[in-house]
Amino acid sequence: MLTTKTLSIAEAKILIEGARRKSEEMGIPMCIAVCDTAGHLISFDRMDGGKISSISIAIDKAFTAACARKPTQVYGNLCQPGQPTFGIHITNGGHFSIIGGGLPVTSDGEIVGGIGISSGTAIEDVEVADAALAYFHAESGVTA
Amino acid sequence: MLTTKTLSIAEAKILIEGARRKSEEMGIPMCIAVCDTAGHLISFDRMDGGKISSISIAIDKAFTAACARKPTQVYGNLCQPGQPTFGIHITNGGHFSIIGGGLPVTSDGEIVGGIGISSGTAIEDVEVADAALAYFHAESGVTA
Amino acid sequence: MLTTKTLSIAEAKILIEGARRKSEEMGIPMCIAVCDTAGHLISFDRMDGGKISSISIAIDKAFTAACARKPTQVYGNLCQPGQPTFGIHITNGGHFSIIGGGLPVTSDGEIVGGIGISSGTAIEDVEVADAALAYFHAESGVTA
Amino acid sequence: MLTTKTLSIAEAKILIEGARRKSEEMGIPMCIAVCDTAGHLISFDRMDGGKISSISIAIDKAFTAACARKPTQVYGNLCQPGQPTFGIHITNGGHFSIIGGGLPVTSDGEIVGGIGISSGTAIEDVEVADAALAYFHAESGVTA
Repeated sequence: MLTTKTLSIAEAKILIEGARRKSEEMGIPMCIAVCDTAGHLISFDRMDGGKISSISIAIDKAFTAACARKPTQVYGNLCQPGQPTFGIHITNGGHFSIIGGGLPVTSDGEIVGGIGISSGTAIEDVEVADAALAYFHAESGVTA
Repeated sequence: MLTTKTLSIAEAKILIEGARRKSEEMGIPMCIAVCDTAGHLISFDRMDGGKISSISIAIDKAFTAACARKPTQVYGNLCQPGQPTFGIHITNGGHFSIIGGGLPVTSDGEIVGGIGISSGTAIEDVEVADAALAYFHAESGVTA
Repeated sequence: MLTTKTLSIAEAKILIEGARRKSEEMGIPMCIAVCDTAGHLISFDRMDGGKISSISIAIDKAFTAACARKPTQVYGNLCQPGQPTFGIHITNGGHFSIIGGGLPVTSDGEIVGGIGISSGTAIEDVEVADAALAYFHAESGVTA
Repeated sequence: MLTTKTLSIAEAKILIEGARRKSEEMGIPMCIAVCDTAGHLISFDRMDGGKISSISIAIDKAFTAACARKPTQVYGNLCQPGQPTFGIHITNGGHFSIIGGGLPVTSDGEIVGGIGISSGTAIEDVEVADAALAYFHAESGVTA
């Protein structure tokens, strides 16, 4: 039998709170998704003004970061034309995101879920995801 | 030009809080989704222990209640074999829910969103959705 | 942080071996799928002569049993016309199976995965799934 | 009337065993899929630690190699921007894989199925697929 650790809803909400604070500071209302180790959605918020088209993008980024185990922007680089992983963005029913803004969430080095941010530019989305992780580790006592 | 009223994220969270309280009281961890007037997700929570297979069901119930403008259990009755609406559950890419647990949310008689509950029996899901609406109107000051 | 137990590949293969033995005894080549606690495929075998159209049915049965946490034949009863859960079979992208042959796999009362069988009649599929579970608990030392 | 040769489940398992051995040697747990001449799944294993997001990628690679009759990395080259086959990866419902790791399996020069590997880099996936084929031809007595 294998044992897997995964984020609780209480922990997912700390991640969302961290993302919300950074988004408000930047003045960009975001879609924020947090999923478990297996890529299934735990919690989602679309801030007032967040983009409709970013709902599924945020969810896909969280899924990809948790399950493919890399920040989505890393896949953005690995999957450019000419790179050996070009084309991976259409796999998994089109839910494999290669746009920055998805990050794995870790606990003592083990991936326990993923966070995905969307509505800004990819660079702004990454900035919010980074801030959410920093807030999470500071507030939850969970060591990265 | 048309003007549409819709739930804010703050109001969506009051609905989710009402659902969460009832779910805890009943001892059934639920998936809880709230969508806007256009059927797009605003906020979602899967309580610890909520079913994986209920994530999309809760979201579909919220969508259907807001956009088809009826409690989903009403469609459950209208769509039985022999009824003229039989078959509607496979429309909208399979996202049209005819299982109880989805309710429109109103403000002064106008639909402003939908809530969807899933993980219990259909009857338990309806009970939690009802309780969430009652809590919402009591706490938010929004008249049904 | 939550902790989840799930089947290993070695344990999944014991389940498949149990299903294979019963299928051979009955003379019905089956599609056999085993998934983890989160509904994701661990192992799959289509015996020589197993039906092409049963590949996805077996996988869907395993997913449903693990994630909705009931034998799929129970949903077959709950979801008949006139029942409150009628219509659930089209949810989850059509992957929610209500046909007998999917069973949750438990360890000390906790669901740790699912097995799905398809190619026979629903009754034959259930018989093979039951035999696979019995074989699994006898051979693996895992208590149901 | 046409006659088609295709891999048996016993032969599929030799391919999977060859892939598993190489994966263990490399220390990378893989998703391994083998399909028949018609592209339909025969057998699948996700080794403990294999990526969730690689389940469908491995299956897609096996399908593509068997049915489009080329190693998937060949399509990776043929389908770059500017190439005449650019865009083929979104066909077949997104199941046409152009990422290395899918290989046709042959018997006396005739394609009898496909193998698909995923969880490593594309280069590691190709290495495992190559090793699986070599193991298969050595162990099964089937001439390539």
